[in-house]
Amino acid sequence: MSPTERLAQLFSDFPGIGRRQARRFVYFLLSKDRTFLKELASTLQNIQDEVLQCQHCYRFYTKDKSSSPLCPICADEHTDHTIMLVIEKDVDFENIKKTDTHAGRYFVLGGSVPILEQDPTKKIRALELIAETKRAAKDDGLKEIIVALSANPEGENTTQYLKKTLEPLADKLGIKISVLGRGLSTGTELEYSDSDTLAHALKNRG
Amino acid sequence: MSPTERLAQLFSDFPGIGRRQARRFVYFLLSKDRTFLKELASTLQNIQDEVLQCQHCYRFYTKDKSSSPLCPICADEHTDHTIMLVIEKDVDFENIKKTDTHAGRYFVLGGSVPILEQDPTKKIRALELIAETKRAAKDDGLKEIIVALSANPEGENTTQYLKKTLEPLADKLGIKISVLGRGLSTGTELEYSDSDTLAHALKNRG
Amino acid sequence: MSPTERLAQLFSDFPGIGRRQARRFVYFLLSKDRTFLKELASTLQNIQDEVLQCQHCYRFYTKDKSSSPLCPICADEHTDHTIMLVIEKDVDFENIKKTDTHAGRYFVLGGSVPILEQDPTKKIRALELIAETKRAAKDDGLKEIIVALSANPEGENTTQYLKKTLEPLADKLGIKISVLGRGLSTGTELEYSDSDTLAHALKNRG
Amino acid sequence: MSPTERLAQLFSDFPGIGRRQARRFVYFLLSKDRTFLKELASTLQNIQDEVLQCQHCYRFYTKDKSSSPLCPICADEHTDHTIMLVIEKDVDFENIKKTDTHAGRYFVLGGSVPILEQDPTKKIRALELIAETKRAAKDDGLKEIIVALSANPEGENTTQYLKKTLEPLADKLGIKISVLGRGLSTGTELEYSDSDTLAHALKNRG
Repeated sequence: MSPTERLAQLFSDFPGIGRRQARRFVYFLLSKDRTFLKELASTLQNIQDEVLQCQHCYRFYTKDKSSSPLCPICADEHTDHTIMLVIEKDVDFENIKKTDTHAGRYFVLGGSVPILEQDPTKKIRALELIAETKRAAKDDGLKEIIVALSANPEGENTTQYLKKTLEPLADKLGIKISVLGRGLSTGTELEYSDSDTLAHALKNRG
Repeated sequence: MSPTERLAQLFSDFPGIGRRQARRFVYFLLSKDRTFLKELASTLQNIQDEVLQCQHCYRFYTKDKSSSPLCPICADEHTDHTIMLVIEKDVDFENIKKTDTHAGRYFVLGGSVPILEQDPTKKIRALELIAETKRAAKDDGLKEIIVALSANPEGENTTQYLKKTLEPLADKLGIKISVLGRGLSTGTELEYSDSDTLAHALKNRG
Repeated sequence: MSPTERLAQLFSDFPGIGRRQARRFVYFLLSKDRTFLKELASTLQNIQDEVLQCQHCYRFYTKDKSSSPLCPICADEHTDHTIMLVIEKDVDFENIKKTDTHAGRYFVLGGSVPILEQDPTKKIRALELIAETKRAAKDDGLKEIIVALSANPEGENTTQYLKKTLEPLADKLGIKISVLGRGLSTGTELEYSDSDTLAHALKNRG
Repeated sequence: MSPTERLAQLFSDFPGIGRRQARRFVYFLLSKDRTFLKELASTLQNIQDEVLQCQHCYRFYTKDKSSSPLCPICADEHTDHTIMLVIEKDVDFENIKKTDTHAGRYFVLGGSVPILEQDPTKKIRALELIAETKRAAKDDGLKEIIVALSANPEGENTTQYLKKTLEPLADKLGIKISVLGRGLSTGTELEYSDSDTLAHALKNRG
């Protein structure tokens, strides 16, 4: 295979990128000057050397001179370590952070559990979450786990699995498990709302 | 103007119908057999004679032999008359009804209040709502008003206006005013949620 | 069934209108004042009385004082009666007319022939087209039939059927059968063109 | 700036990629194993070394052992070198090739001329096209130049500019300049066609 074809193939593995757009990326790179290509290749190298994964929450973070094995949020004493927000992936972290309403820490599951999945521990860091819950309860006084997953079937399946898995431990350790509130999302017109959302919105009225 | 042009003009007043589709409607009617056209015209006549507007909630309903000036829900003694759900328009009623989670009565505002509107009473039945609130408090023991409007700017503006308008009266009469819960709507993926919705979902977690 | 339900049912037969929008139409009419409803009903009546179908081209047209059994274009001596443009439906006529590039007459098929249809004469005015071709050849010196149908599978199937059906007669009468040109339509970006369109555009280059 | 932020910035320069998707790419790469990242970086290196630009048609092609300064099509004696198809960019080449209707050679403009552009030679290889036309007329007996650009305003502006620029030379050398045919593209429904397309389709009927 020629390097252009191989490159198109690699790009078509990128999320949301089909064969056609992968080829456009290749032609885009060919038409750019060499500086761009060089910087792209060297930045990819740097990523391998300078990005670490937090030993508590599994988020990716950039290595700094402190050489801490923890991400800035897990290492920060101003973080409210008694509340742990469980998210599917790193991008979700940025979205939650932007809301400025969560002062606690995070935990990245690394995926979600498809309906009918036999072995969820292959898809998400369920065992790691249990271990970290135990550690955080002991070391940090963990009080609440917020399961913050998508409101679609796979997200809800994952939420159910986590609740079932964590509850015995949480009960024993006095940790509350909560989930994101359901209702009308911003911009929703009542006329086009589904029954499920409306039922939640009515029940959670306030 | 020819009758076909006039008909197209009338159809283009219909919600969501542009000039092009209005003309398609006309050609559709021309190509149908005369029976269809006749029944359409006569059903339009019937509507004028047989559909009434409820004197309590302003919903449209079909006249029956009881000749009640109230719609079936307002006339029904099994309805929970202590809870009144305020909606923008008749279609919203059907959506709420499908959820099977509201056992109370309704009130149709007949519109919403645009931002910067000088005289909201021209756009919605605000005065009628106050009168009906007084009557229902006295006659039916009204306890709660649920303002169930869209979560978009115009809906939220209307909700604010209603709260401000109703609160003095509601306080005096011991009526609670509530609004639909905000949060993730069904199907929402966390990654594509806006900050406002996420902030609500976090605050309303449970 | 109540008149509102019946009306919603009739509207849901309209082209492109689902059950939900049909109900919105009903509520829209209920909320309009009675004048609108009355005029809509009476215009529907007028349509039945004042719209005729042309005996040559089958287009619908509004009756005028001339009481001609022909539409204004078929009755007009300035029309080029030697060229007949065959279209699927009345709306197509307006689109072609707007281009100002066809000075001839029309013929409305009234439908198209689905792939695998056993009896095309049930779907389109094929027999009427043959009769009209004979009449127009004799009376008006018809020289060309332009088959102006959609470039989708059903349109192309109809074109093939018409060509096969008309050719023996057209050959005998010295009438040319042509079809609309294929190639890039306005706004087409080369990068997103399908192979078939590009092949036509290359072949028809000029 | 951290390497992850820098990488997201580089990706957001890619065609059709916004800031959000650029970040998703970064997280995608972080979650992949190191082999993928390594191969991506090394393939980017290879591209720099192994991809050349054809000296006749300006297409990119992969270097092979022949070390020809010409792309496989320009170097191939089975190519019809008397017909040159002018395209905007490399991707268009693949689309045309798939149609299997052009046996000739290509020329890549490298861009298009925006309306009101003062100096088109900065946007496209206009001077290179003139030089190559002279060379090909002399060496290869060039007979026809097919200008194969998009049917949108910028594409048509570029076509007009090329025609005006090439015509004196083409006339002198006996070279025909043609453009892609216009008309209904595959899948077009007559009802939704614009006037311009319909006018072309009628004029180019056959």
